[in-house]
Order: sequence, then structure tokens, then C-alpha cells
Amino acid sequence: MPVLNLRSDLAEAEALPELMVAIGRRARAAGRRMALASAQTKDQALRLIAERLRANADEILRENARDVAAARQAGQSAALVDRLALDAGRLAAIAESVEKVGALADPVGRQLAAIERPNGLLIERIAVPLGVIGVIFESRPNVTADAGALCLKAGNAAILRAGSDSHRSALAIAKAMSEGLAEAGLPADAIQLVPTRDRAAVGLMLGGLDGCIDVIVPRGGRGLVERVQAEARVPVFAHLDGVNHVYVAAAADLDMALAVLLNSKMRRTSVCGAAETLLVDRACAATHLAPLVRTLLDVGCAVRGDAETQAVDPRVTPVSEADWHTEYLDAIIAARVVDGIDAAIEHIETYGSHHTDAIITADRAEANRFLAEVDSAIVTHNASTQFADGGEFGFGAEIGIATGRMHARGPVGVEQLTTFKYRVHGSGQIRP
Amino acid sequence: MPVLNLRSDLAEAEALPELMVAIGRRARAAGRRMALASAQTKDQALRLIAERLRANADEILRENARDVAAARQAGQSAALVDRLALDAGRLAAIAESVEKVGALADPVGRQLAAIERPNGLLIERIAVPLGVIGVIFESRPNVTADAGALCLKAGNAAILRAGSDSHRSALAIAKAMSEGLAEAGLPADAIQLVPTRDRAAVGLMLGGLDGCIDVIVPRGGRGLVERVQAEARVPVFAHLDGVNHVYVAAAADLDMALAVLLNSKMRRTSVCGAAETLLVDRACAATHLAPLVRTLLDVGCAVRGDAETQAVDPRVTPVSEADWHTEYLDAIIAARVVDGIDAAIEHIETYGSHHTDAIITADRAEANRFLAEVDSAIVTHNASTQFADGGEFGFGAEIGIATGRMHARGPVGVEQLTTFKYRVHGSGQIRP
Repeated sequence: MPVLNLRSDLAEAEALPELMVAIGRRARAAGRRMALASAQTKDQALRLIAERLRANADEILRENARDVAAARQAGQSAALVDRLALDAGRLAAIAESVEKVGALADPVGRQLAAIERPNGLLIERIAVPLGVIGVIFESRPNVTADAGALCLKAGNAAILRAGSDSHRSALAIAKAMSEGLAEAGLPADAIQLVPTRDRAAVGLMLGGLDGCIDVIVPRGGRGLVERVQAEARVPVFAHLDGVNHVYVAAAADLDMALAVLLNSKMRRTSVCGAAETLLVDRACAATHLAPLVRTLLDVGCAVRGDAETQAVDPRVTPVSEADWHTEYLDAIIAARVVDGIDAAIEHIETYGSHHTDAIITADRAEANRFLAEVDSAIVTHNASTQFADGGEFGFGAEIGIATGRMHARGPVGVEQLTTFKYRVHGSGQIRP
Repeated sequence: MPVLNLRSDLAEAEALPELMVAIGRRARAAGRRMALASAQTKDQALRLIAERLRANADEILRENARDVAAARQAGQSAALVDRLALDAGRLAAIAESVEKVGALADPVGRQLAAIERPNGLLIERIAVPLGVIGVIFESRPNVTADAGALCLKAGNAAILRAGSDSHRSALAIAKAMSEGLAEAGLPADAIQLVPTRDRAAVGLMLGGLDGCIDVIVPRGGRGLVERVQAEARVPVFAHLDGVNHVYVAAAADLDMALAVLLNSKMRRTSVCGAAETLLVDRACAATHLAPLVRTLLDVGCAVRGDAETQAVDPRVTPVSEADWHTEYLDAIIAARVVDGIDAAIEHIETYGSHHTDAIITADRAEANRFLAEVDSAIVTHNASTQFADGGEFGFGAEIGIATGRMHARGPVGVEQLTTFKYRVHGSGQIRP
């Protein structure tokens, strides 16, 4: 490497903390203005952003083509290149989803509780924006627009950090968003993309940028989420795994169990709400296990099973201890027979990831036990695990799914991107 | 130090991580049972705990007397010894407050939202316990009972770590609580006191005990909270400072301003809701500043003021930049004249701690601006800052006040010691 380049790299590295804190300060200042913006102004900004995304289509697609070419040259996988690539249709869909976020109800200013006290005080709990949200993502350029729009709708400022592969595309999209914000009279800094590919920027964001980031949302694979959860000094909205279970209980209707299991596993195998483990009650194994397993095998799902599951079909391969912990995100399922609901719950609590777990049963009391005792963000009765999605919950859109125990749990939509404050209305009350 | 003692100390230090993780695992297991306990059983446990605290009074007071003697011998301050010391009256009050927690509504199982989807799914958001709560406190032995009771009421398990000074008292109280739990048929491990004074136990708790602690609540002075916030790898419910402001606006009724300011500052100067800074609008300074300042001075409150405040009374001393940042927790106030509401909000956002801030004004529009724009957990209009208290909010009791932006903000009562899960009720729905 020539000396001059080395020098300039060093200068950049030294300047990075200052650069990032400056981004944080601008975001904090923008966030204060965003928090006070009316619903109308925010929605107008989202409409203008969608217009800008369409108007700037040539520029965005040109930058995206450069990202795609670089990724191909670097020998990235076809799957990554597909996630990365935009075309006119995909860009139109991105603009449309920004408009859809604008059409959602404003989550800010909702009265979450009202308490009238004997002394005449009226205490309101009112939804307010979280503040500044740091979003760290990988190769999908649409995340820039989707995450930015959701943060904006909830009155927050966003600091977006795109993966190296999608950096140029993300910059072009973020530029269109800042233009739309400014046109609506809102601070352009409410959506900022970190302008460097330097990976040290991620570490700085996880440190909170001198108190300027309130929450981090990682959008990407397990490696990213694991790093973020391990290093972040600010709260994180995320889930690490979706090791989701379908428990077919003795009283399950077989046709319903077949349909729900097949959908839970195979509708899309790559989503976090996909089922990874099948548990079948011993009491119905004689009638239910074989058709459940064969149906999966027949549509191309590999089944790794315990001895009883292996016995129903020669295509079943042996399951190992590691399988119970595994999020395949593929056409593979682990399967076993359990001794009733207690064993099922014990299995889920031992191996699960507290994301989404389902019971299939016609027995309402057993269902209620499962819904109460399985300690996951989402528990379903007679419904596919693949409903684990903000859109399916009626949230309109989601920035991700969280399995933490704080605040945002399950699908994280615009409501979950707010916090609250108490407003106390008095007439001169003093405390005795 | 004799060799044998040294050896035993080393053995203890080596064993500490294992000891603490074992405590964590027992808490996790107890928490799972607590989460499913009925309201009746939990309330019965709280009544039995109160009985046990009364029945074990001799033992508790004897252990407390040993703590007090040791603290005196160690030359601890009179204030600390007073916080530490129990007598029959104080112990009776502790038992009574445990019973009061039992009388609160059960926060677990509340339906927080219900969403009916076009496909027939019913999605409920239901309050569930947080899990395992680590409480780290200093010299007040009553925290053992108060914090333990609140955690229990919300269906959690608690790991309590008492300060060295109150260790014997806390052990005796925790023993009574475990007895009450067991008598009610609940796991005695739902309330565990860390049995060692080794300060390394605190660090281990802040690390989360191998995923066995969900939230940490520090109860104590600034040093403790600062350490906990800096080191904790799990969420923390706390506030570091209560640098609270009273802003007297141009349209303030002077009598009301006098009463609310006096109460905010002087009712109790040592509480986190006490006012520390007075801001007076220049537009009413000529009429309001002198009486406000003199009233404080006359009741023994030192006033540190800017040039204009110094001009109204010779007893006012000059204020420094550091004063604006200071939580005095004493009969001292910093005071200045500001140019209207914008300057007041700017001062509060620059120097405040986002705890509790008040505006005194008869102008409803100005009040609304203040309530909207001051980004604190609690904002009051024409009401004392000292209402910042779970009891005053109607929560019945509180474990503390939080200024974070997650989940628990403002007074942390039993509702804030829960999280939620989604229960999805279907009839065989699959996702298209």
C-alpha cells in the first residue's frame, strides 16, 4: 500500500470517533424537532420521500448497479447479489411501502393511561418518540427506506449503517429521504446514513455515541445480531434465533395439524417465524406421527427424528442434541415424540429461543396451559408460527421481531418505536 | 491473618461465581413457578410474609442490633446508622407495607391489547412477569421486604444483594420472606438474599448470572447507580440524578408559585423528586423573583443565583456553571432569570436529568408547550415536583423511579415489573 494512502487511512481512523459523535449530535438535535412534528407534517414527508425515491430512480439504480458489480467482482454469493440488486419494480415497491407507513396511525401523543387522583391531579401517560434509533443492517438496500420510514413515522431520528456491499445504494436512498424531509420542513438530519464503510463505525454506534443513541436495531444475520447483543451499551431490539416449535397434542385435529405444520415449516423456510421442531404427543403418535412426517418428507423437507420418528419412514435420519438448538432456516425439521404437554413445555423451555411457539389441539384447557406456560414472545393456538410478523399482527409494518423482555417484544412496529412520559396536570397541588 | 482464614477466603472467592450462578438458576426455576401462581396465592404469601416478619421480630431486631453495633464500631455516620436501625415500630411498618402490596391489583394476566384480524385470528397482548429481578441496595434493611414484596406481587423471582452494613438484618428479613413463600406453597427461592458480603457478587449480578437475571434495580446513592449503569450487561431500571426544575412563567399566579416552589424544594430535600433549580421568566421577574427567593431564604434554603437573583437579596450567593448540573439533595437551590419558555426549555434540556420538571403558569398554551417539549419522564403543570412518587401516582408502591427510555419510565410500580407476550388464538389459520 502506498504511503500516502496509509496516511489518509490513518487520518480517517483518527477522525472516525469525532465524525460519528457529530452524526449523533445532529441526530439528537433532529430528534428533538421530529418529536414535535405533527402527524400531517410527518406523513407529508413520507409522501415526499416516496416521490423523491421515484424521481431519483436513475441515480439510485445506477449506484445500485455499482454495488452489484462490486459484489460480483468480489465473488459474493448469488443469494447475496439477489438480496442486493434493485430494479425499477423493486424500487417502486420500496417507494410504495414508504407511502404505506405514512398511512398508518400516528403512534405519538396517544394517551396510554389516565389517572385521576383524589387531590385533583390528572396524570396522563402519553406516548413520545424513543429518540435516536441506530439501525445496523447488511446487504438489503430496502432496509434504508423501510427502517428510516418507520423511525420517522414514530417521531425519531435514525442513524443508519449499511453493510459494505450495499453502501452506494443506501447512500443514494438516504439522500432521497433527506431531500423529502427537508422539502416537508423537517430536519434532513433526521435520517442519516453513516458515510464510511469503516467497520469501526459499528462499534462506535454500539457504544451509544456519547449518549446520542437510545436504541440499536440490528437487521441481518446471526453473526451481526450476536455481535450487537454482546457489545451494545444501549438497549437492543432484536432476536438472535427463531427456534420455533409446533406441538401437536393428543386432541389435535389431524387435518388442521397437517395444514398448520406444513405452513409453519414450509411456507417460507428462511423467515424467523418458521418452525424448526415438531413435537408430537405420545398419546396421538400412533395416528398422527406418520402422516405429519410423511407430508413433510413428500414436499421435500428433511426430517431428523428420534427413534420413534425414524420408525415411521426410512427417509427420517437420526436427530442429535445439537439439532434441538438449531435454527435451520431451511427445509429441515427436527422431530420427536413427547410425553404430553409437560414434556413439550419442558422441551421448549430447554431448547427454544422464546420467539414463536404453537400448539395444535381441540382441547381448550390444554391450549390455555400452553399459552400461559410457554415463555415466548408469541404463542399460538391452532395457527401457523409464520404469523409472527408485524404486518400479520395489523401493525402495518415492522422493523423486526424482538425476543427481549423490555418494552418491544414480538413484532416491532411504529408503536414499539415510542416510549412514554407522564404529564401531570395540577391547579397548585403540593404534596403533604 | 492466620493461614487457615486466608485459605478459606480463597476457597470462597473461587467458589463465588458458581455460588452466584446457582442462585441465578434457582431464581429462574422459582420464577417460572411464580409466573403461574394465582393472584390469591401470591396475596396469601404476602400476608404470611407479614405474619412471619412479626413472628420473627425478636430475631430480626437482634440481627439488626448486631449490624448497628458493627456500623457504630466502624465509625459510620449517624445518618447511616439511622437508616440502618430498626425498632419494633419500624418493623411493624415494614410488615404493614408488605400487606399493602398484597392488596394491590394483580398486574399479571391483564389484557393490554386485543387485535382481531380479518382472517379470524384473535391476538391478545397479555402482561406477564419480567422474570428474575436483581435488586442491589445499600443500608436500608426495609428494602429487602419492600422490593421482595413488589417483585413477588408481579410474579417475579428476586435476587437481593444487601449492603455490607445491613447484611445481617437483610438475611433475617429474607429468611422470614422465604418462610412465608413456602407456607403459601410457593418456591422459597423466589426471594433469595445473596449470602456473602463479597463485593464481587455485585459484579457477577451485573453480568446477568449466565442469563438468569432479566433486570437490575439499584437502590442507593449516586455511586451505586453509576457503577450499575456503567457495568450492567442487562437492562437497568434506575435514575442517576434528579436535577429537577421549577419554571415560573410570566402568567404564574404568585401565591401558587410560592406554594409549589416551596413544596418542590423544601418538603423533603433528600428525595429524588426535590427541585434543585428555579427558573423565572424575565417577564415576571420584577414582581415574582424577589418574593420567591426571599421565601426560600427565610425558611433556611441557601440560594445560589445569577446577577439578577443576587440583586434581590444580599443573602444570595453567586451561582457557578457546576451548580446547574448539581443534585444538592439539601436545602440549596440554584436560581436564574431566563428569557421566556424557549430559554427555560433550553436550560432544562442542557442541564437537566430528564427526571421531573414543573411549570407554573395560568397560560394553558404555554403549559402545553412545556409539557410537550421538556423531554423528562415526568412533567408537571401547577403541581409540585415532589409528586414524583409511585404512591402519589396511585401505583400503591414503587421500587424506584427510572429515567431510561425503555419500558419502565417514571415511578416503577408492580405494573412496570411485568412485560408482555402475545397470545394468538386461531382455528387452523395458515399464512398465505
